Amino acid sequence: MSDRAVPKVSILMGSDTDLEVMAEAARVLSRLEVPFELHVSSAHRSPQRTAGLIRDGEQRGVEIFIAGAGAAAHLAGFVAAHTTRPVLGVPLASSELSGLDALLATAQMPAGIPVGTLAIGRPGASNAAWLAASILALADPALDKRLRSERERMAEQVAVKSDAAQKKLASLL
Amino acid sequence: MSDRAVPKVSILMGSDTDLEVMAEAARVLSRLEVPFELHVSSAHRSPQRTAGLIRDGEQRGVEIFIAGAGAAAHLAGFVAAHTTRPVLGVPLASSELSGLDALLATAQMPAGIPVGTLAIGRPGASNAAWLAASILALADPALDKRLRSERERMAEQVAVKSDAAQKKLASLL
Amino acid sequence: MSDRAVPKVSILMGSDTDLEVMAEAARVLSRLEVPFELHVSSAHRSPQRTAGLIRDGEQRGVEIFIAGAGAAAHLAGFVAAHTTRPVLGVPLASSELSGLDALLATAQMPAGIPVGTLAIGRPGASNAAWLAASILALADPALDKRLRSERERMAEQVAVKSDAAQKKLASLL
Amino acid sequence: MSDRAVPKVSILMGSDTDLEVMAEAARVLSRLEVPFELHVSSAHRSPQRTAGLIRDGEQRGVEIFIAGAGAAAHLAGFVAAHTTRPVLGVPLASSELSGLDALLATAQMPAGIPVGTLAIGRPGASNAAWLAASILALADPALDKRLRSERERMAEQVAVKSDAAQKKLASLL
Amino acid sequence: MSDRAVPKVSILMGSDTDLEVMAEAARVLSRLEVPFELHVSSAHRSPQRTAGLIRDGEQRGVEIFIAGAGAAAHLAGFVAAHTTRPVLGVPLASSELSGLDALLATAQMPAGIPVGTLAIGRPGASNAAWLAASILALADPALDKRLRSERERMAEQVAVKSDAAQKKLASLL
Amino acid sequence: MSDRAVPKVSILMGSDTDLEVMAEAARVLSRLEVPFELHVSSAHRSPQRTAGLIRDGEQRGVEIFIAGAGAAAHLAGFVAAHTTRPVLGVPLASSELSGLDALLATAQMPAGIPVGTLAIGRPGASNAAWLAASILALADPALDKRLRSERERMAEQVAVKSDAAQKKLASLL
Amino acid sequence: MSDRAVPKVSILMGSDTDLEVMAEAARVLSRLEVPFELHVSSAHRSPQRTAGLIRDGEQRGVEIFIAGAGAAAHLAGFVAAHTTRPVLGVPLASSELSGLDALLATAQMPAGIPVGTLAIGRPGASNAAWLAASILALADPALDKRLRSERERMAEQVAVKSDAAQKKLASLL
Amino acid sequence: MSDRAVPKVSILMGSDTDLEVMAEAARVLSRLEVPFELHVSSAHRSPQRTAGLIRDGEQRGVEIFIAGAGAAAHLAGFVAAHTTRPVLGVPLASSELSGLDALLATAQMPAGIPVGTLAIGRPGASNAAWLAASILALADPALDKRLRSERERMAEQVAVKSDAAQKKLASLL
Repeated sequence: MSDRAVPKVSILMGSDTDLEVMAEAARVLSRLEVPFELHVSSAHRSPQRTAGLIRDGEQRGVEIFIAGAGAAAHLAGFVAAHTTRPVLGVPLASSELSGLDALLATAQMPAGIPVGTLAIGRPGASNAAWLAASILALADPALDKRLRSERERMAEQVAVKSDAAQKKLASLL
Repeated sequence: MSDRAVPKVSILMGSDTDLEVMAEAARVLSRLEVPFELHVSSAHRSPQRTAGLIRDGEQRGVEIFIAGAGAAAHLAGFVAAHTTRPVLGVPLASSELSGLDALLATAQMPAGIPVGTLAIGRPGASNAAWLAASILALADPALDKRLRSERERMAEQVAVKSDAAQKKLASLL
Repeated sequence: MSDRAVPKVSILMGSDTDLEVMAEAARVLSRLEVPFELHVSSAHRSPQRTAGLIRDGEQRGVEIFIAGAGAAAHLAGFVAAHTTRPVLGVPLASSELSGLDALLATAQMPAGIPVGTLAIGRPGASNAAWLAASILALADPALDKRLRSERERMAEQVAVKSDAAQKKLASLL
Repeated sequence: MSDRAVPKVSILMGSDTDLEVMAEAARVLSRLEVPFELHVSSAHRSPQRTAGLIRDGEQRGVEIFIAGAGAAAHLAGFVAAHTTRPVLGVPLASSELSGLDALLATAQMPAGIPVGTLAIGRPGASNAAWLAASILALADPALDKRLRSERERMAEQVAVKSDAAQKKLASLL
Repeated sequence: MSDRAVPKVSILMGSDTDLEVMAEAARVLSRLEVPFELHVSSAHRSPQRTAGLIRDGEQRGVEIFIAGAGAAAHLAGFVAAHTTRPVLGVPLASSELSGLDALLATAQMPAGIPVGTLAIGRPGASNAAWLAASILALADPALDKRLRSERERMAEQVAVKSDAAQKKLASLL
Repeated sequence: MSDRAVPKVSILMGSDTDLEVMAEAARVLSRLEVPFELHVSSAHRSPQRTAGLIRDGEQRGVEIFIAGAGAAAHLAGFVAAHTTRPVLGVPLASSELSGLDALLATAQMPAGIPVGTLAIGRPGASNAAWLAASILALADPALDKRLRSERERMAEQVAVKSDAAQKKLASLL
Repeated sequence: MSDRAVPKVSILMGSDTDLEVMAEAARVLSRLEVPFELHVSSAHRSPQRTAGLIRDGEQRGVEIFIAGAGAAAHLAGFVAAHTTRPVLGVPLASSELSGLDALLATAQMPAGIPVGTLAIGRPGASNAAWLAASILALADPALDKRLRSERERMAEQVAVKSDAAQKKLASLL
Repeated sequence: MSDRAVPKVSILMGSDTDLEVMAEAARVLSRLEVPFELHVSSAHRSPQRTAGLIRDGEQRGVEIFIAGAGAAAHLAGFVAAHTTRPVLGVPLASSELSGLDALLATAQMPAGIPVGTLAIGRPGASNAAWLAASILALADPALDKRLRSERERMAEQVAVKSDAAQKKLASLL
């Protein structure tokens, strides 16, 4: 957590066992120099605490909430019900159903209370941060520039990996 | 709503479009002479109102909450997060996914915050009432007797329907 | 099994291989000081024995049945067909289909014969016990108090775990 | 129902609303001149009646049981638990989940208590009868001959329908 | 389309048959006074056109892209691959699979190229607009105020609908 | 069916009830001037006939087989097992499961016996023809040219439809 | 394989990698003293061989075919298309989809060509043998007696396992 | 990669982590002496590079494109949108959903832009190559002959494996 700056993004997760996956969001935000905070809080076990974190976050200047939860994943919806700030949901594969339950419980929100839902698990945690950055970049030209150069770097890496794969292929045939 | 007696059961639903299905629960409770109340309140559009209905309900003597919702059906989980009274959840088939989303979002609750989940749609609404009655009957011998006689009646009806089906079969061959 | 007191809850499971998961229910009941009994009995391999356990249980004062089973999980429905006491079902992930089969086979009961279904696997076993306790607490103020204080403890633990996660995050970035 | 002959097949269904689909089985058996009986009886609402029908059926000479049920379709499994005669299960699409629940609840039986499961709905009801006939034909050369000639007729009809389709195609282009 | 103002949001849809559902997004944006444009363009049938619309949109000042598509719904992902602006995806139920295919094809994006995915169909189209508005409101206090007052209105409407449902219930019992 | 030319494509379907959907393939082939034949033949009801149609087709010069079937859709796999010519499979939504069963039964072929599987239903029938044409175009420059000009036409139509949708939108707001 | 007696049951499997699971069927038949044969043969890689094994099997006196296959599991349907003897299908979990594909491809057969489908994987392989034995027992009183005593033994084992589970529980609390 | 000959097939994959599975396609093409090239390129991270590889491939004489991707697997559809050459798609099980997401995202293409979809994962990668070979064999009698002899070899191997399985069975009973 980059605690010197005012956090722009608040990462919430329903259980401390989600930390390893949700840290992916923190890594992307750190790399993009977006200040964030991170809390464990459950929509079910600690609803008052969660409501408090949302209210306090808004007051401290948090602009985007990222919520990761598994199974009957209500956390993102709970956050969305308590703020009009953008809420991004990350469904986690923490039950026997591989995250399909969490995906449906996060994405299928009723009209009026939106949650922008990302992929199940690690790519989703990463993308919640990328999407948060793209939102913040609308008002932050420096961040916008970092985002664009990261995107170019991704494209360049593909070519490098392709060369490596072509070389490795010979050993697989 | 049988408003003369103190409601023992509170039926909540996330949208007024759920009324037709959730009325099934009301019908069963009426028939079993269990006093109840019924409210529309959403976990997402009106979380404060919902929390208030739970708190007030508990204080007025509500012993069991029945919550029906569709899609990312958080209502039952939200109620369970705000009370230690028994909460029964009815997943509704109000989205494109035929209630599978609502079933998973209602049943897959984390340890510590239980929701007793019934079937999707009409049979589930009916059974939430039957289960509520069986809970209340633990302390209400008259209700217990009504329950048992209803159960016997069900079994008897099967035989009657079987005779009718045998007669009808001839016309189908 | 707390065999000194009259069991209030009977935990049934379809196979002895379900014990490790269903022991979660026993642990929660022990912690909440709710007397219970536990039996292996199958709806398919030993229907007479299962019917006998239900009948005897009712006579000995069992108020709630918890039934855990996997695959074509009929046990909870079988119990519900043989009693008007509350029946709570725990779908187990013992087949190749990760418990989705057991969830549907447990939850999708016809109107009139309810099973309050919990989550698949370990959280569901735990929650069957929590829900049983919340039912018994309606007539047991001391249990109600224990339930409420456990709920508070859960909320407090979330804050503790959040602090730990924040500290651990640094090592993950 | 061909009540002059001793029934060789007993068709059971969980609800009288299943009659229209399950009549398909009756039609096939009638056509193949296999004597049968048909009853409505539920594993959940009338378990004693169902157990009685199985026991009486076996004693009267029923050799095969066909059981059709929807949702948490336990009927075929219940029958299989009460007899060692062959049991054929027909999953019915009577819930919101299009019969997927019934298919899993019928097919995923534990080792030792088999149910030969057919397709969901009408083709399954038909095939339960075709499979029952193929079983009875093992000891009934006349039935075996009828089965084989029906099979040939099916193949011939395909060619006829193909000609018709080719003619109809012109009007669709 | 409010063509006097510079569009802030570009609504894309893969087929003109998606218009009726995607118009929901347009309705919400109109109501919130957010200027938008709307185009039909397919990731598959007209990739160059789609890439052009994204490039031109960015240059004209579009800040957010909403993309609605069904089946192998690639449109949102295609847009996300061509811009670093926020992309919101609406899975549509236009195939036989009720939108489950579109949901997975929209949400399961790889790390680095995020799509904020909303619910299947009409609620998702509506929520794409609500989420777009909440993003734009970060830099637009007047819009933020409108959003908050809409949210309050939603909560108030719930109470009104609850009263109506209570009155209607009597006629359903 | 363009019976003057030697058929290059053989369209097979498992049932005459599949004709309306599979005619979509015929329409596309007609439009692209690819000669074809069409037969109803089942992998299950008429395996010998089906094997004969494949063998005869190959001998008459059929280069590609298109097979459409629903439910436990074995037809395409059966054809692939009897030829080394390219086989394209169209899963049809003719059972209660909306074609998901047919999709899996068509696509999940074992290594060595490939079926190129298209989408469920009408778009899949159309695309089987488009893919067949793209295969034949490898050796037929005129067809290749027709294919490319159809593709351009599709892209142009998108722009036309977009204009129409923009005009229609006003009436929907 | 008990090669001294004429095989009554032919166990077919689509791949030699299925042997370990399908051996479960062989074990049950051996235990019940039902003579059987076992072959690897694929509906796709070796259709002629498979057709030959069915034809030869029928001529040698095979009364029941058991077919186990995974993925686009056509083997049981292929066998059913080539015989009017009873065919029992075992869906195997050999693809990424945990056997759901094989279950649908085996169970969803069209009217007229039945496959009695058992559970996915090991329990299904076992139950194919149990069901085959129950079919053969209709004409074999000694086998019928063995079946019934096995069933009693199963029920008795449940009680023994229940005692063991009760003892083991203490160590788990 | 057989780089001396002009590649007839271009194998594309969305990520270098897909190499191990997609190498299966390369192995089959090598064995069948079909010249191919292989590239890593993503529809999302490097759309321009991917479009370039398709355009260059076509110009260099590539006749068939094989595209393997997981999750929201857009690669095959992206290729199909940029060429009228035959495109074969391999859904990969690289997300939490075991490739079901990739299967739907690859197969459910809209009318006009076909992707011939193979099985999930390794069998699909292998079959993309087998299908590509069967397409090329239409104009290459030597390849056609190799294909047919490979098919015969497969059938022969089944008999060999059957003998081995029969021998191994004894040790499993």
